[in-house]
Amino acid sequence: MSIEAKIAGDIEVRTREELFINIQPIQVAGRLTPEAMKALIAYGDGYSVCDWCRKPFRLDCIKKPPIDKFHKEIAEFLGMDVARAVPGARRGFQAVANTLVEKGDTVVMSSLAHYTEFLAVEAAGGIVKEIPPNEKNIVTGEATAEKIEKVKAETGKLPKLIMIDHFDYSLGNEHDVYGIGKVAKEYDIPFLYNGAYTVGVMPVDGKKIGADFIVGSGHKSFASPAPSGILATTKEWAERVFRKSSMKGDLTGRVFEAKEVEMLGCTLMGANMIAMMASFPAIKERVKHWDEEIKKINYFLEEFLRIEGNKVVSEMPRKHTLTKVDTIESFHKIAKTHKRKGWFLSDELKKRKIVGMFFGATKTWKLNTYGLTWNQIEYLTKAFIEIAEKYNIPHTLAKKVEKERKL
Amino acid sequence: MSIEAKIAGDIEVRTREELFINIQPIQVAGRLTPEAMKALIAYGDGYSVCDWCRKPFRLDCIKKPPIDKFHKEIAEFLGMDVARAVPGARRGFQAVANTLVEKGDTVVMSSLAHYTEFLAVEAAGGIVKEIPPNEKNIVTGEATAEKIEKVKAETGKLPKLIMIDHFDYSLGNEHDVYGIGKVAKEYDIPFLYNGAYTVGVMPVDGKKIGADFIVGSGHKSFASPAPSGILATTKEWAERVFRKSSMKGDLTGRVFEAKEVEMLGCTLMGANMIAMMASFPAIKERVKHWDEEIKKINYFLEEFLRIEGNKVVSEMPRKHTLTKVDTIESFHKIAKTHKRKGWFLSDELKKRKIVGMFFGATKTWKLNTYGLTWNQIEYLTKAFIEIAEKYNIPHTLAKKVEKERKL
Repeated sequence: MSIEAKIAGDIEVRTREELFINIQPIQVAGRLTPEAMKALIAYGDGYSVCDWCRKPFRLDCIKKPPIDKFHKEIAEFLGMDVARAVPGARRGFQAVANTLVEKGDTVVMSSLAHYTEFLAVEAAGGIVKEIPPNEKNIVTGEATAEKIEKVKAETGKLPKLIMIDHFDYSLGNEHDVYGIGKVAKEYDIPFLYNGAYTVGVMPVDGKKIGADFIVGSGHKSFASPAPSGILATTKEWAERVFRKSSMKGDLTGRVFEAKEVEMLGCTLMGANMIAMMASFPAIKERVKHWDEEIKKINYFLEEFLRIEGNKVVSEMPRKHTLTKVDTIESFHKIAKTHKRKGWFLSDELKKRKIVGMFFGATKTWKLNTYGLTWNQIEYLTKAFIEIAEKYNIPHTLAKKVEKERKL
Repeated sequence: MSIEAKIAGDIEVRTREELFINIQPIQVAGRLTPEAMKALIAYGDGYSVCDWCRKPFRLDCIKKPPIDKFHKEIAEFLGMDVARAVPGARRGFQAVANTLVEKGDTVVMSSLAHYTEFLAVEAAGGIVKEIPPNEKNIVTGEATAEKIEKVKAETGKLPKLIMIDHFDYSLGNEHDVYGIGKVAKEYDIPFLYNGAYTVGVMPVDGKKIGADFIVGSGHKSFASPAPSGILATTKEWAERVFRKSSMKGDLTGRVFEAKEVEMLGCTLMGANMIAMMASFPAIKERVKHWDEEIKKINYFLEEFLRIEGNKVVSEMPRKHTLTKVDTIESFHKIAKTHKRKGWFLSDELKKRKIVGMFFGATKTWKLNTYGLTWNQIEYLTKAFIEIAEKYNIPHTLAKKVEKERKL
């Protein structure tokens, strides 16, 4: 019988990051920094950030702890003018969609767009039209322009908004945000850059991209607890998306002139706010080393592809650590006759203290090596080769080693 | 020179709850339980709750940790059918307003309503109309019916929604939610019960109240980190406010049929979700002892009123621990000539390790004694008497003690 620690009732203590190498596609860049963990411990209590709240009584104006400073710095960090912390990237999409989209308006986005972009437009009463990727599964400026023309021809109106994921959630492919930024300017349509997979792991410069809005995710890529995120914009758009309340009480005459309607006043209070701030110095440093992360995923895949039948579905070479692989002709063949079916691969990895691939998957599945050390990458590589050997799947590693010996 | 611990950069460690007696009006019922703190430590990492996410891939369906069970139990706990965790009460207001309110529609709410209710209606394009409180600063069912009639007469339409705070943020007075529940039924207008100051501190039974929606705040009254909250509703309304996505990708044909539009899919992920769950057993216990909390505030105020000039602005006897007091004729008189002006009172309290009143206030100000022990209540009481004595403000405590001696 195993003794499992419980937090309360039947809530188990989570130990995935302590006991395993985690390659879960959406978890790895949201692991807390030690500073963020300290922030949680010190600022966990509900309204912890309100100790020194003074006029105008709004989160982003609080000076102690220095929330106001963080808001200025994060805007600058993203090459934008104004930023607000929000409870998740989706709340950033919602604020922009609810500001710009009226009932029946069209929004164009990639056919690889994240579902939360769909929902934000749907909640605002808008209609999503998808831009097709090219044969390499890349959405280009050209395809965006074509879709805009199509919408114009069909509805007589231009789309109200372009929303594009720099790297998509499905393949982790890089889409042509610079080209799309230009197209957006040409058509004078506001452009929302979805940086859920970029803001916090690689440098992002909104000015260079030509983005009107940048949305980032704290829990996905900014080493922060959920829910947390960032919505950044230009001076011009800030006036609209961060517009102040103009509603007046008919009896009391009261107004809330300092409160921003789409933010519903204060947004990301408490521990999550301070954790983002606490992780920020480490974030500023780590985005400088994105190239090293890219080297690691490409090295891993080079080795992974030595296993006969293994394929990579994402674009190659990788420009992102999030990657979709195809093991239909390798591990899936084993799964077909294994008594544990597809679970055998998860079992084998777990035995080797590796978790995070979708349990039971052996056809196409995603992994993310962000933040692994070179030693861990090497270990991960060897684990897959070992499993292949155990199940008699041929691989060319032997040849590689042989070749190296000869040199 | 003092040595101050820093989390990162210039973010100080927060020690208010460790070193002081805190009477801050909105902070006290949002202090974490030890179990919630454990949850933050174990589930701090971004997408920590997604380890065991399976079809239909939605937060409230996750079985491990038992998020699905919590959702069922919290609905039952509130006498409702369906509940969702949300990132703050305001996101609950927003979901309901965005579902029910079309551009130009009217929503009636108390003239003591919280600003976030205003903003939620404004964001949805609606118009707020205020219900006046009676001479005792209580909003009644009768006044609500009158306002509904007025709106009908003026606009030719009934309001789309009634939003009422059970206890308001300003005075902590109890409003006639039972009477208003009946009026709502009579007019067949949905009724949103704002339990930001009740859910998590006192028993709340939505069925008994006749509420169609109940909104609670995790960080205000549920011993949880910010942002966190609850939106609960009936089976009938759940179909609308938790309606599933029906948007279809025009190229891919993809649909997200499991995702709830107003929730934007998953809502309150990560540490905040697990912290609410971890605090829930303690919450279920503590709501049973609300009467003891009421005894404490009334005892404190009885003593506080022995200081000549001190008044209570909130209804008396108190039915809530959040209370507004008036010290214009006592401490404010001292402030007028004190070199530290209004700050003298905060200074004196802080010297006695009491914080949380608005710094510098000596006219009317709020305090909240929720969660203080009887010893702390006694200490707080004596602190005010001591300060009164120091500044030669008369008080009748001596007489009370004399009287007790005689008995």
